[in-house]
Amino acid sequence: MSDTPNPANDPDLARLSLEHCSIAGALDALGDEWSVLVLRELFYGVRRFNEIQEDLAISRSVLTERLARLVEIGVVRASPYREPGQRERNEYRLTRAGVELLPVMVALMQWGDQHVNGGHGPVILQHRPTGEPVQVELRTTSGLPVQANEIVPRAR
Amino acid sequence: MSDTPNPANDPDLARLSLEHCSIAGALDALGDEWSVLVLRELFYGVRRFNEIQEDLAISRSVLTERLARLVEIGVVRASPYREPGQRERNEYRLTRAGVELLPVMVALMQWGDQHVNGGHGPVILQHRPTGEPVQVELRTTSGLPVQANEIVPRAR
Repeated sequence: MSDTPNPANDPDLARLSLEHCSIAGALDALGDEWSVLVLRELFYGVRRFNEIQEDLAISRSVLTERLARLVEIGVVRASPYREPGQRERNEYRLTRAGVELLPVMVALMQWGDQHVNGGHGPVILQHRPTGEPVQVELRTTSGLPVQANEIVPRAR
Repeated sequence: MSDTPNPANDPDLARLSLEHCSIAGALDALGDEWSVLVLRELFYGVRRFNEIQEDLAISRSVLTERLARLVEIGVVRASPYREPGQRERNEYRLTRAGVELLPVMVALMQWGDQHVNGGHGPVILQHRPTGEPVQVELRTTSGLPVQANEIVPRAR
């Protein structure tokens, strides 16, 4: 987007820089790095408190607080389960809004694979029906591939 | 990805939860919310210190520090310019690694449009050649559309 008209010359776009920014709103909802790593666990199919805690080497209090926040903003829901002979506990699952964070997570992973892990990340996301790797791409709503320099931001 | 094999049953995947996670690495590189908003300005084509400062209503010291960090991690570069009769100043531009953060930014915007701004964000990203809106999508490397529940994470 480097040669696009610039918000300094577009009062509508500049004003939107301060109000209602969806990027700022999404970041604010996501919260901190722990929250994003908890979401990663849920995407990977890990649902139980003790398993998430073990994978992330996170303290119980930090994990409790982050899960409560993710439930509060509506991206995670708790559902009770009971193993034979044990007390009732909660499993944690992504809501629809949580599943819709998947492109954010995959985009972060893709960039980290390339620029933090030198082109080879530790995890591959595989498309079950075809076995192909999965990636995020920029496309138009009708499905045409989009290059970064073809994007122009417009005030709605 | 809700019904996929789970890292608690996959020692390789669980181990990777602690080491070399590309998501954690990317988040760490991105830094805080101010850094992401500075990147947003650069994506929008705003390149000059004073213009970024004005759009974001950010203090000079915070902006200086965030720009220096983004330059240090290699996503932004400073290039000098001089207006007639003024001293030399720097413009800031995205490097290749910075441009490759675009899917992260668009994914955040897309989620925020939907879940923070009720389906209508303030900014539309338009594809210059066709005028169509731009979005991020999950696709296989050969271009097939991917549903969230078709993704299986595998240790490399």
